[in-house]
Amino acid sequence: MSSVTTSSYSITMRLHTDPDPRVVGTVATAIGDAGGIVTAMDMAESRHDRLVVDVTCSARDADHSHALVEAVEALSGVEVYKVSDRTFLLHIGGKIEVTSKVPLRTRDDLSMAYTPGVGRVSAALARNPDDVPRLTVKGNSVAVVTDGSAVLGLGNIGPGAALPVMEGKAALFKRFADINAWPICLDTQDTDEIVRTVELIAPGFGGINLEDIAAPRCFEVEERLRKSLDIPVFHDDQHGTAIVVLAALTNALRCVGKALPDVRIVVAGAGAAGSAIVALLLAAGAGEVVVWDREGLLSRDDDALPPAKARLAAKTNQNLLRGGLAEGLDGADVFIGVSAPNVLDPAWLPAMNEGSIVFALANPDPEIDPIEAAEHAAIVASGRSDYPNQINNVLAFPGVFRGLLDARASDITLDMLLRAAQAIADVVKPDELNPSFIIPSVFNAEVPKAVAAAISGRRE
Amino acid sequence: MSSVTTSSYSITMRLHTDPDPRVVGTVATAIGDAGGIVTAMDMAESRHDRLVVDVTCSARDADHSHALVEAVEALSGVEVYKVSDRTFLLHIGGKIEVTSKVPLRTRDDLSMAYTPGVGRVSAALARNPDDVPRLTVKGNSVAVVTDGSAVLGLGNIGPGAALPVMEGKAALFKRFADINAWPICLDTQDTDEIVRTVELIAPGFGGINLEDIAAPRCFEVEERLRKSLDIPVFHDDQHGTAIVVLAALTNALRCVGKALPDVRIVVAGAGAAGSAIVALLLAAGAGEVVVWDREGLLSRDDDALPPAKARLAAKTNQNLLRGGLAEGLDGADVFIGVSAPNVLDPAWLPAMNEGSIVFALANPDPEIDPIEAAEHAAIVASGRSDYPNQINNVLAFPGVFRGLLDARASDITLDMLLRAAQAIADVVKPDELNPSFIIPSVFNAEVPKAVAAAISGRRE
Repeated sequence: MSSVTTSSYSITMRLHTDPDPRVVGTVATAIGDAGGIVTAMDMAESRHDRLVVDVTCSARDADHSHALVEAVEALSGVEVYKVSDRTFLLHIGGKIEVTSKVPLRTRDDLSMAYTPGVGRVSAALARNPDDVPRLTVKGNSVAVVTDGSAVLGLGNIGPGAALPVMEGKAALFKRFADINAWPICLDTQDTDEIVRTVELIAPGFGGINLEDIAAPRCFEVEERLRKSLDIPVFHDDQHGTAIVVLAALTNALRCVGKALPDVRIVVAGAGAAGSAIVALLLAAGAGEVVVWDREGLLSRDDDALPPAKARLAAKTNQNLLRGGLAEGLDGADVFIGVSAPNVLDPAWLPAMNEGSIVFALANPDPEIDPIEAAEHAAIVASGRSDYPNQINNVLAFPGVFRGLLDARASDITLDMLLRAAQAIADVVKPDELNPSFIIPSVFNAEVPKAVAAAISGRRE
Repeated sequence: MSSVTTSSYSITMRLHTDPDPRVVGTVATAIGDAGGIVTAMDMAESRHDRLVVDVTCSARDADHSHALVEAVEALSGVEVYKVSDRTFLLHIGGKIEVTSKVPLRTRDDLSMAYTPGVGRVSAALARNPDDVPRLTVKGNSVAVVTDGSAVLGLGNIGPGAALPVMEGKAALFKRFADINAWPICLDTQDTDEIVRTVELIAPGFGGINLEDIAAPRCFEVEERLRKSLDIPVFHDDQHGTAIVVLAALTNALRCVGKALPDVRIVVAGAGAAGSAIVALLLAAGAGEVVVWDREGLLSRDDDALPPAKARLAAKTNQNLLRGGLAEGLDGADVFIGVSAPNVLDPAWLPAMNEGSIVFALANPDPEIDPIEAAEHAAIVASGRSDYPNQINNVLAFPGVFRGLLDARASDITLDMLLRAAQAIADVVKPDELNPSFIIPSVFNAEVPKAVAAAISGRRE
């Protein structure tokens, strides 16, 4: 699966070498022979008795990066003095900071931003609470809330270890939608405590982004908070994923000339993402949706299903298909995987209909190698940035919250999610659309603007 | 009391006037005659039929700013088109923002700061939780927590209206100590709920700054959180105030040639600040401390005192003085007011000992006009920036948390508070010390460094 090097496994080796300028070539060759890619080479120091050289290179994964270091260590006249991991270096001290938007240079500045001037603003807000979003950071801020129970593909690693992910999310909020997001990592996995804590911290935020909370807890947390709070609550793992999947599927179906009501879609994974994808597909007019999970194909005539899965079964699989993923895919048009690595056997793909679509979105390792999938499927997408058609929540959540905050929305509706998906799909122009380009780049600045407008109903 | 204009009541009037250049002088004269100070005058537009002029001026208070507008409106040939309040303008959209410290320009950037790279960091933190402060923002971040129950002099205005104050505090944390502080405004005033919520959000923060929580609730909240959390908890209204008061008093006593064990100190106000000041004074070796509150002088032979005040009485007022503030001040050396406006009658000051010291710290209006107090007292200090000797918590809290975070301290001790007060006092050099300069400027960059070093025990 990890056949491609990635900068997320990028290391920098500081080498002490003999004072022979050819050593640079020797090192680069050794790294290349070991499958690494040299991305930077700096001569840090050149003395008569030795050279100090910093070599940065990308590896496929942790084992590969160790192998690259060993390959260099094996060279004569070269000593690996220190190995730094660029990703870890980037995280030292955290990735976000809180800065002041106002000058604080003089006593006058202080007396307006803090006491006594701020007292007049607070007194005005006590009289007119509706002005709080306008005169404070509330109107443009989002809490990124997690209990650390379902972090990326890592599972239940707890709130402290989840913090780097939440910080990254906050950085993306700023980068793509100029929103001030702050991570709130909760030291509890009790549903009541999570709900109550978010309710109690809500006055300072304009929206709540729930993140990496395990299913089925996430469903109840979100439902209860939506009822009790007057600010929008959005579980990105559910609805952000669903929006981007629907956007990609809309364009993929355009490519293969099929219509959503006419296709059979198999969704692998009945967790947070899978449930939300099913709900949005049905709202968008999907015809036949079948959900597969570790229990097999979910069917309403199976009395053994736990409640959340029984609810999913009740609104899908009208034909009461039973069996494994292979049975579900036989005669299907679309596979959408939000489950686990390598659950999709390439041997099952030929049984899918002509013009089949495979979205293998498990992170970091997809349900099937995208290259292998492309041997049979007409269109393949994954969550990976190193293959075409990356399905990435970054396409949705910044614009979604930008639109919600701009509109001072108190709720988020299914209709908003549908409009957001359509907006993302429409960023890909008809003449750009092809099987390797069904979804815009995350760096396309049109995307968050289009999503925000679709959510708020405002055009710029 | 408000005899001096302040930029916190600064307004900008946009004027439409006859096209007579002399109008600028007329307007400036009218504002000056009405007691305002013109701080800026901009010709925004000059046409043959009219001028557009922006005039910015400081007023004493809200009534005075209305009077200035009326004085300008009364001029012939001048129309006041719009009045803007600079303090409110400054607060629009909030005063703080969350920014990314890392570049997010390329896919490589994203793959290191977010998935998949961040997954390796999170996995490492799951294995080594001790690294969380180093590899996340936790190590340099503070939650500024309030329930909105005792905000400045405004009282119980609730969490939303308190937000501008908490944002201002966060901005000061950054400005003076490079700390990332985020406001947490709680929608509850229940002690158990406050405690539990702070416990649950603690994993993402390196320290907790409690702010503007009413006494006696604040005592229990702080005490319980100090026991349950592994990060420092500091109620600034208590300990920040106490540190700065002790620093100022140390230097004031130097000025008048008295020693702390030998003087009688009357503390007016038995709330959060008063209680903490008493505790720190006693720890510093104060001899006779008497507390006055609305109930009169607190004395241990008064069975009617509520619990928090009875605790104060038990450790003060050995001579069992009874009566009002006048009785307490008769023969006293030091008055420290953290109570309410105008409770100190100037007529009582002559009964204090020679070389008397008056700290009138009620905000925004002190216990006695500092000018009147100076007629009898040798040294006067207040919370106001427009008189000498401003006693301002900004001198303490940034350096306190800088020191706590630098040392990865899990607790804050009374000894740290004493050292911090001494560090602030020592910033004023012997040749600078005089009755009008007992405390350094809040803009003295030495102060937060000295406080941080005193707290952490580290020297730079």
